Amino acid sequence: MNDLTPEDLLAALAGRYSVGPKQMEAPAPTPEHLRLAAQLALRAPDHLGLHPFRFVSVAPAQRAALGELFARAAQRRGLDDTEVAAARRRAHNGPALLAVIGRLREDVDDVPMHEQWMCIGGAVMNLLNALHLLGYGAKVVSGLSVRDAEVRDAFCAPGEVLVAWVIAGTPTRSTRARHDERVDDLLTEWLGIEP
Amino acid sequence: MNDLTPEDLLAALAGRYSVGPKQMEAPAPTPEHLRLAAQLALRAPDHLGLHPFRFVSVAPAQRAALGELFARAAQRRGLDDTEVAAARRRAHNGPALLAVIGRLREDVDDVPMHEQWMCIGGAVMNLLNALHLLGYGAKVVSGLSVRDAEVRDAFCAPGEVLVAWVIAGTPTRSTRARHDERVDDLLTEWLGIEP
Repeated sequence: MNDLTPEDLLAALAGRYSVGPKQMEAPAPTPEHLRLAAQLALRAPDHLGLHPFRFVSVAPAQRAALGELFARAAQRRGLDDTEVAAARRRAHNGPALLAVIGRLREDVDDVPMHEQWMCIGGAVMNLLNALHLLGYGAKVVSGLSVRDAEVRDAFCAPGEVLVAWVIAGTPTRSTRARHDERVDDLLTEWLGIEP
Repeated sequence: MNDLTPEDLLAALAGRYSVGPKQMEAPAPTPEHLRLAAQLALRAPDHLGLHPFRFVSVAPAQRAALGELFARAAQRRGLDDTEVAAARRRAHNGPALLAVIGRLREDVDDVPMHEQWMCIGGAVMNLLNALHLLGYGAKVVSGLSVRDAEVRDAFCAPGEVLVAWVIAGTPTRSTRARHDERVDDLLTEWLGIEP
């Protein structure tokens, strides 16, 4: 660990903010960096080791095919031609594009569904942390495409769900908080119970 | 960022594993370190900035009161005296003990509940990451106490939910993976759609 101070490490993580598609450019994370990021996702607390998530990378050569899926989904939602074209273009967002796939288990009494969703959230958090530490910017995007059955079935096995997309690339500018991060009651002390 | 390499930073995070109550001792994280950890939790992706979580710390002086709550909850579940005593003792686990409180919003169409749970999961992930980087061990525990109405009401405002407990302290030994982390299909490449 050389001379790393805890403050250095925390500062590195605390500087991570979402980077949108217009704030990033090539190069995309290398396959090895994507693999490292996916590995760090496995460090999310995962009661009973259910691994309720996996990631699927969409290669540049497949972006056009994904665009057609997005366009058809937009048509099914009744959008007009301009909006359908915008949906098609979204498949080209980000030098790298990952699908986050959820594989939730309803038959495990000890791990309720919300805990499995928390595990997926922790996994995505660490995927983003790793990409950030490796010098990339990234953002989770969901939107209506993930709820479309044809899009889902193009990525998911039966029983799986399409959770979100993660776009990643090289940031072109520094980013910062989009929301006010002052939260008065973020950490308080328990006052106990009434006598 | 001095001489930190991405590999150093990733390695520091990748070495985080859950540390159970029997694998930790005093000192607890300082109030300032707990505050830093809670702040890092705010870096979780949080669509629309809903802040669906907060943390409540249980001071040493309040552990006995919490133990009585746990004991009454165990009695309500019909447990025998030995199990009730064990439930009471669990309130003393960990040099530090935090309640994770969820404040989920069902009235926000753009952010479905599972995305809010993912935000809470990402927040807890970063709380654990920060405590680890600061030299502490920690673990998320839930169990049946969080589902008890009296325990919940002692921590939560109306509409909030008691999600889990986080115990934290100084690790007494090195920890490692409890589950096999080889996941064959963790990251695959999209094969596209059938022609």
